[in-house]
Amino acid sequence: MDEFMQAALDEARKGLGEGGVPIGSVLVHRGRIIGRGHNQRQQRGSTVLHGEMDALENAGRQPAAVYRESTLYTTLSPCPMCSGAILLYGIPRVVVGENRTFLGEEALLRERGVDVDVQQLPECIELMETFIRTSPDVWNEDIGV
Amino acid sequence: MDEFMQAALDEARKGLGEGGVPIGSVLVHRGRIIGRGHNQRQQRGSTVLHGEMDALENAGRQPAAVYRESTLYTTLSPCPMCSGAILLYGIPRVVVGENRTFLGEEALLRERGVDVDVQQLPECIELMETFIRTSPDVWNEDIGV
Repeated sequence: MDEFMQAALDEARKGLGEGGVPIGSVLVHRGRIIGRGHNQRQQRGSTVLHGEMDALENAGRQPAAVYRESTLYTTLSPCPMCSGAILLYGIPRVVVGENRTFLGEEALLRERGVDVDVQQLPECIELMETFIRTSPDVWNEDIGV
Repeated sequence: MDEFMQAALDEARKGLGEGGVPIGSVLVHRGRIIGRGHNQRQQRGSTVLHGEMDALENAGRQPAAVYRESTLYTTLSPCPMCSGAILLYGIPRVVVGENRTFLGEEALLRERGVDVDVQQLPECIELMETFIRTSPDVWNEDIGV
């Protein structure tokens, strides 16, 4: 696993340790992490801070040029909201830990020219499978089901 | 203007009074406002709290059934991120103050079955026209340009 996906997975595990939904993300600009985050539904009662959104929020205000040279790493396939944020800011590349437990808007992202690289990593799949099995209600709430 | 769009416009004006991007939103469930919000880029340095996202965040955690009976009012056509949030939570109806100064993902929303009602209100248009003229840099940053 490359160092950036490892950092995203570390975020996911940090979230799990806090009693939260174990999805993590990092925003990488020119080989440097400029934002790290994880899902904040349980911890902060947040409905908008999915892992990817939390990473974007923690990266702070950036000029458009920075987003356009960045890659977003996320442990799970990005939902419609997070995919929309990727499109809003024109992030050209997304690296996804897995899409077996949840398939987000990868087709829309590709249709709009985003490079989506799904790595199907066993560590990411196992983390989500365990969480979905033990906390189905929180998980369904997180994806609007 | 109906009372809910007026409440969204009040939020937009509150944001302007705080030195922020003047876009406001309310989430309405069965005729009652359950979340109000406005863009928080300037006020909180937020890149994810657009008006619609702030209203969703302030509505707090809701069961899927609540979103599916709700209408989101927003003074401006929803960007890709906010449109994605609408799709994530399955909000079936969006009432938009105007789309003259910015056209968001209305086509995608309609394609996915969301009822999008654009009211083209002079008050909303004027608010954004003035803001874009006086603060073009902040505005461009807000829409990833």
